[in-house]
Amino acid sequence: MTVLINGQLNSNIAASDRGLQYGDGLFETIAIKNGECEHWYEHMSRLTDGCQRLNIPAPDAQQLLVEAQRLCSDKERAVLKIIITRGSGGRGYRAPDMVEATRIVSIHPWPSYPAENITQGVCVFLCDTKLSYQPALASIKHLNRLEQIIARNEWDDVNISEGLMSDIDGNIVEGTMSNYFAVIDNELVTPEIVDCGVAGIMRSHIMAQAILHEISVRERKISLDELYVADELFVCNSIIGVWPVKKLVNHSYKVIGEVTAQIMDGLI
Amino acid sequence: MTVLINGQLNSNIAASDRGLQYGDGLFETIAIKNGECEHWYEHMSRLTDGCQRLNIPAPDAQQLLVEAQRLCSDKERAVLKIIITRGSGGRGYRAPDMVEATRIVSIHPWPSYPAENITQGVCVFLCDTKLSYQPALASIKHLNRLEQIIARNEWDDVNISEGLMSDIDGNIVEGTMSNYFAVIDNELVTPEIVDCGVAGIMRSHIMAQAILHEISVRERKISLDELYVADELFVCNSIIGVWPVKKLVNHSYKVIGEVTAQIMDGLI
Repeated sequence: MTVLINGQLNSNIAASDRGLQYGDGLFETIAIKNGECEHWYEHMSRLTDGCQRLNIPAPDAQQLLVEAQRLCSDKERAVLKIIITRGSGGRGYRAPDMVEATRIVSIHPWPSYPAENITQGVCVFLCDTKLSYQPALASIKHLNRLEQIIARNEWDDVNISEGLMSDIDGNIVEGTMSNYFAVIDNELVTPEIVDCGVAGIMRSHIMAQAILHEISVRERKISLDELYVADELFVCNSIIGVWPVKKLVNHSYKVIGEVTAQIMDGLI
Repeated sequence: MTVLINGQLNSNIAASDRGLQYGDGLFETIAIKNGECEHWYEHMSRLTDGCQRLNIPAPDAQQLLVEAQRLCSDKERAVLKIIITRGSGGRGYRAPDMVEATRIVSIHPWPSYPAENITQGVCVFLCDTKLSYQPALASIKHLNRLEQIIARNEWDDVNISEGLMSDIDGNIVEGTMSNYFAVIDNELVTPEIVDCGVAGIMRSHIMAQAILHEISVRERKISLDELYVADELFVCNSIIGVWPVKKLVNHSYKVIGEVTAQIMDGLI
């Protein structure tokens, strides 16, 4: 992978960086299509919000765009990852008085997911690992990802493409790397991201698409029992776009459902 | 700071390391006194336990000891930090099939805490930030430390030495960088570390010391109201040892209380 660290070609960071020492930072994973960063402003908006929430100086979005373009302008399809950390220094958990954030921009090959994930749908697992309640970290895309790692490593079956995670009250909140939407009682619903979970860029984009297509969409708590009786179910993120779910554990769904198809058409 | 990465003098790590990308790893902070690593075997035991819990290959303890000694044998007082990460690779959150863990051993100056923290006691704050329930990560010293960072940055008063954190049910679990003990109804008590919190090495050591001195000690849930009526209160970790608490918010404690003094004497 090619990496720019604070604007310089460099594949190493200081071991003292708080990103490594404590997971003290944020990231964005951005789809590159025909040399362009997809949903750039939405990613920058979430990153800025995350920086404000963690009290890390937000990066200069123009400078980041120049660096992103340097890495992706010749790429037809690729994944751009941006990491912002609180840099080095401070005393233990205490942040340094003058924070010099570290800016890591890297480019990666487009992942080789089967094309059938989109056209035929995917099988989804239900993770045992629960998402913990932490409103201070909910919605932002921070670097503390051990919950997702433990959950993702619960299954090793190549036929399972994603795992859904619940909170400790049994609400199904999101996938290990995705958000999800369901059609329940003729309404498109997606979990509210308040106490845990990531507010995905594709999730926001789909909600906007739904409104544009006059599809009623609502954020609310969703239980497993409700998911089992849902008419349609799909997972989404910035890289995969939308994957219709054909099976959740032993329950099957119609693929591709009517509302899912409308959303997918709108994203093209 | 001097750093050994996988045994080599090097102050940089690969930006692709999962320790940076996801906080995918563990650490230990060890007191060096007269060139020796204090409580080495206890630290190695917790690190090994953490590696098993996260399914990271545990480091060779003998090799780690050689590296630790290389950095600390000439140091009268210093802090040794060991970080073990899952290394690079894998597909997103999914761990690589063959994990090559990264081993980072670094040496740091002994922190300049006032001597009065031990002799006169410290003032302690009550953090708003809650510890989230996550039994999958409780007790081990993992690299996902944003909760502690947010909590530690709630106060900026040099007269406050530590902040206590509660879980979402109001039990006071630990400090941002320490565990604590209280004397309540003539019994030495410390919170149980089941759903959140770190099982500190000094905490274990103090429990063993208490038993040796025939002081009754018990792990249990402790509420804030109980802490306010406690006869004695102290915080502890591997570096600070024991700091008696003279004040928690507006409540004062006797310093140094009888049981606290016995424990402190036992640690010398």
